[in-house]
Amino acid sequence: MDSQAFEALSADTLPVRLGGNTAVTDRIGEDSSRWTIREVGDGNLNLVFIVTGEKGAVIVKQALPYVRLVGESWPLPLKRSFFEYHALTRQARRDPGMVPEVFFFDETQAIIVMEFLTPHVILRRALIDGRPLPRVGRDLGLFVARTLFRGSDLSMVTREKKADVALFCDNVELCDITENLVFSDPYFEATLNRHTTPQLDPLVAELRSDRDLKVEAQRLKHIFSAKAETLCHGDLHTGSVMVTENETRVIDPEFAFYGPISFDVGMLIANFWMSYFSQAGHETAPGARDEMRLYLLETIETLWDTFRSEFAHLWRTERRGILYQASLFEYRQDPLAAEQALNIVIDEIWSEMLGFAGIEIHRRILGLAHNADFETIADPERRASCESKALKLGRHLAVNRQRIHSLRDIRATVERLEMEIIA
Amino acid sequence: MDSQAFEALSADTLPVRLGGNTAVTDRIGEDSSRWTIREVGDGNLNLVFIVTGEKGAVIVKQALPYVRLVGESWPLPLKRSFFEYHALTRQARRDPGMVPEVFFFDETQAIIVMEFLTPHVILRRALIDGRPLPRVGRDLGLFVARTLFRGSDLSMVTREKKADVALFCDNVELCDITENLVFSDPYFEATLNRHTTPQLDPLVAELRSDRDLKVEAQRLKHIFSAKAETLCHGDLHTGSVMVTENETRVIDPEFAFYGPISFDVGMLIANFWMSYFSQAGHETAPGARDEMRLYLLETIETLWDTFRSEFAHLWRTERRGILYQASLFEYRQDPLAAEQALNIVIDEIWSEMLGFAGIEIHRRILGLAHNADFETIADPERRASCESKALKLGRHLAVNRQRIHSLRDIRATVERLEMEIIA
Repeated sequence: MDSQAFEALSADTLPVRLGGNTAVTDRIGEDSSRWTIREVGDGNLNLVFIVTGEKGAVIVKQALPYVRLVGESWPLPLKRSFFEYHALTRQARRDPGMVPEVFFFDETQAIIVMEFLTPHVILRRALIDGRPLPRVGRDLGLFVARTLFRGSDLSMVTREKKADVALFCDNVELCDITENLVFSDPYFEATLNRHTTPQLDPLVAELRSDRDLKVEAQRLKHIFSAKAETLCHGDLHTGSVMVTENETRVIDPEFAFYGPISFDVGMLIANFWMSYFSQAGHETAPGARDEMRLYLLETIETLWDTFRSEFAHLWRTERRGILYQASLFEYRQDPLAAEQALNIVIDEIWSEMLGFAGIEIHRRILGLAHNADFETIADPERRASCESKALKLGRHLAVNRQRIHSLRDIRATVERLEMEIIA
Repeated sequence: MDSQAFEALSADTLPVRLGGNTAVTDRIGEDSSRWTIREVGDGNLNLVFIVTGEKGAVIVKQALPYVRLVGESWPLPLKRSFFEYHALTRQARRDPGMVPEVFFFDETQAIIVMEFLTPHVILRRALIDGRPLPRVGRDLGLFVARTLFRGSDLSMVTREKKADVALFCDNVELCDITENLVFSDPYFEATLNRHTTPQLDPLVAELRSDRDLKVEAQRLKHIFSAKAETLCHGDLHTGSVMVTENETRVIDPEFAFYGPISFDVGMLIANFWMSYFSQAGHETAPGARDEMRLYLLETIETLWDTFRSEFAHLWRTERRGILYQASLFEYRQDPLAAEQALNIVIDEIWSEMLGFAGIEIHRRILGLAHNADFETIADPERRASCESKALKLGRHLAVNRQRIHSLRDIRATVERLEMEIIA
């Protein structure tokens, strides 16, 4: 057998295959016979091992040549590991300390060895458990502002940005998943779809015949596919965030692509709104999760406000790319022109972000890849009740995104939906 | 000397170097001693030879490693020839018969041998001479609709489109020219700028301190740099069009890049508006060019109407890409949803197109690359009068592009500017 050919790791073969790798042994110890290996991949796509030795532990993540969630019938290229590696190194430069440190990358084996985050838990899990994390709004707001601003023509040397666009264009299969599963499948009876049935059937039928919604979903797909504005994480939901009380880290950027600045922001915020509506499915008594709900709405506001402030700060201090050049504004004694342009740019990010948020909510309830916030609500009646409110918010956001002007307004709508004052 | 190294052609060396090339000899005859060679490159960048033999003639176009207009101090890579070749072959497929046929391409020597168009003249020249060409509005409207629709995610297999985006990302130096010379330099005192002075000085100062205009120019640059919607010609002005009474052909797509659908359309239409305002500089008596002016305004309307109708036709019959899929609309018995989306898409192309048109007008009068329409008006007073009206239209379009709803309205503004009723 060609020693270079891809071979999936197993707990048995891992010590043999990585036992001589100093990137690993330097961190966890050389005696691989004493390593303990635990496979913890709970995502949809990959193998993930925690490898623990005498000195410490590392994560070994390996892509598989198919979608793990579905099986070998859905092939998916190993090169997504290459894009994850390149996204991680760029994000580490753009917002230091916010992504796991990479120790080793093997392109052929699609293996990334990286920092083991402990005692971190997945943010989504914490939110389901009703555990508020005080830092995530601010940390994630800074992360999206910094990575998205610094990866764009507002900041980069345009030659390097274009070369990077070309590099990431090849992540076509992962973009294809988003294009289909996020923007199209939820809006018709696609084979891979599922939803809580029969409870949601009437609402699903209504949404699938909602002309304005479907047109808007496709406009957003158009923006997703054509607006190569910055390097996006591409799959930034609460399952891609690991947290402690004191630290927030962002993982799993294998869907990375050049897309609109608004995309990551909208996907992320959508997951907090879904968490909000899922709380009723997890609370042990009515009102038991009221504080958690308040926390979630405030986190959304903190996240967006932090994004906006940090983006504006970078705009004023690091705008060295080809767009909105200081030579036309500040250097001509017209700094207000740069402020005017900033407002226009933020305004567009805002309305697109709301659209992407709406669509993300829909696909998590109507499409293939559901999320644990709702899935762990065992009673289908109760789950459907939560999901139905979220679906309605999603429709409201996607269709009215250019007419909604503040999170305060959305908060009022969200709270009225939750109380079933409106539907 | 390495026989593969680039060497600029000359009339003397051309027969030796291409004498054995069957792509050439098949068309013009084998006896290269009887070829006549005429260098006719009047553009800003390249060598262009008409090579005539016993049997016929071909065009031999060779890129130079610098900007011809400026000299060796401004290097420019030969690979632009590669992009021209690839753009020509794609355009030929997307709108057959509208671009010169390519017979031979040598990447190292940056040589394209192509069809010699005769008795065609450059459209810009014909318009300066006051010669109306009846077909250009319709032919060019079809050309932009077909090439831009068929090069986008509305039509292409997305994997092929992404690979092509990656390919053309490397045309970075030519995009850089547009980014600087079109969108930024005209709006401050950049070194390469020139304008009719002192006559235009007060208006130029006004435009360069016009905050709304400069912000809008940079928004359009943002759209230019980020919206990789389709393969654009990239330099589609009336100097890139060759015409007879019966035929229209589009040449010189070396600036080809993936950009907004609106870009080529706006650049092109701008050149007709400039021709309109330049007529007063060429007419031998007041009113002598009235028919020409009427022709130009009607050509603009025909061009846009044809673009819109053909785009809509392709939307209804060839929309097989990933965007606005029939599976969501027509196949769900909701063809009106597809019409709704079409209106939204056209509306966005329209307002962007007006912006690009406005900016194109400015850069041709304030920047480095002026056009012959105005340049051939010898009297600076008369030239400045024409240019000043065009500049004002450009500002009006760029700043108000989202508030202007029809060419009829613009026509009224254009005619009032021409009559100096408004200024």
